Amino acid sequence: MKKLIIVFAALVPIFAMADHHKESTAAKTEAAAPYRHVVCFKFKDDAKPEQVKKIEAAFVALKKEIKTITNLEWGTNVSPENHAQGFTHCFIVSFKDRAGLGVYLPHKAHKAFVELLLPSLDKVFVIDFVAK
Amino acid sequence: MKKLIIVFAALVPIFAMADHHKESTAAKTEAAAPYRHVVCFKFKDDAKPEQVKKIEAAFVALKKEIKTITNLEWGTNVSPENHAQGFTHCFIVSFKDRAGLGVYLPHKAHKAFVELLLPSLDKVFVIDFVAK
Repeated sequence: MKKLIIVFAALVPIFAMADHHKESTAAKTEAAAPYRHVVCFKFKDDAKPEQVKKIEAAFVALKKEIKTITNLEWGTNVSPENHAQGFTHCFIVSFKDRAGLGVYLPHKAHKAFVELLLPSLDKVFVIDFVAK
Repeated sequence: MKKLIIVFAALVPIFAMADHHKESTAAKTEAAAPYRHVVCFKFKDDAKPEQVKKIEAAFVALKKEIKTITNLEWGTNVSPENHAQGFTHCFIVSFKDRAGLGVYLPHKAHKAFVELLLPSLDKVFVIDFVAK
C-alpha cells in the first residue's frame, strides 16, 4: 500500500505536466490560426483623434463579441519605407478557417463597427490569405 | 534515506514540467513577435507564372537567410470583399523588434530578392506595426 502511495505521489506531477502540455498545444494552435484577414485604414483628414481612438477600441472589442476570431492584433504604421499609401492603421484578424470570416462579416457587432467607422474613413484596404 | 529517494522521485517530473514551461514560453514569445512587416504585391499583367513562383519561393527562403526574422507567412488573396486594389500576394514578416527590420532591409539576401522581384512588380504596399 505504501508503495502504491509513493507511485501515485510521483505520478501526480506527470499528470499535471500532461495537462499543461495540452493547454500550451491548444494555445499554439489558436495562435497559428491559418486564415488571416488584413485590414488597413486611412482616416479622413478631419477625423477627430478621439473618434479614431473610439474606432480602434471598437475594433479590438470585436474579439470578445465574435467567437470565431482566434486572434486580433493591430498597430499604427511605423514603416521607414514609403509604401503605405497614406494608410495609418493595420489590423490582422485571424480565424481558424474561412468559415470563421463567414460568421464575422455579417455579424451584428461587425456591422455596428462598420457604421461607427464609415463617417471617419477615407480609404480601406483588405487582403485575406490562408497562411502558408 | 528511503524518504529522500521518494521525495526526489516525486520532484523529477516537477523539474521536467518547469523546463517544459520555459520552452513553451519561449516558443510563445517568438510566435508573438511584436514587430509586423506587412508586404503586398501586385504583379505586372505580363509577369510569367513561373517567375511569380520563383519570387514566392525566394521570399520564403529569406527566413533562413536573415536571422532576425522570427516568423514569415504568406498567401494569395482570398478575400470575398473587393478592397484589395488588385494586390494578389500578402506576406507578413515578423521581427522581435524594430531592430530586426533594421538588419533585414539592407541585408544582401533581401537586396538580391528585391532585384529578382522588381522586373515583375506592378505595385507594392507596405505597412509595419508593433503588435498591440
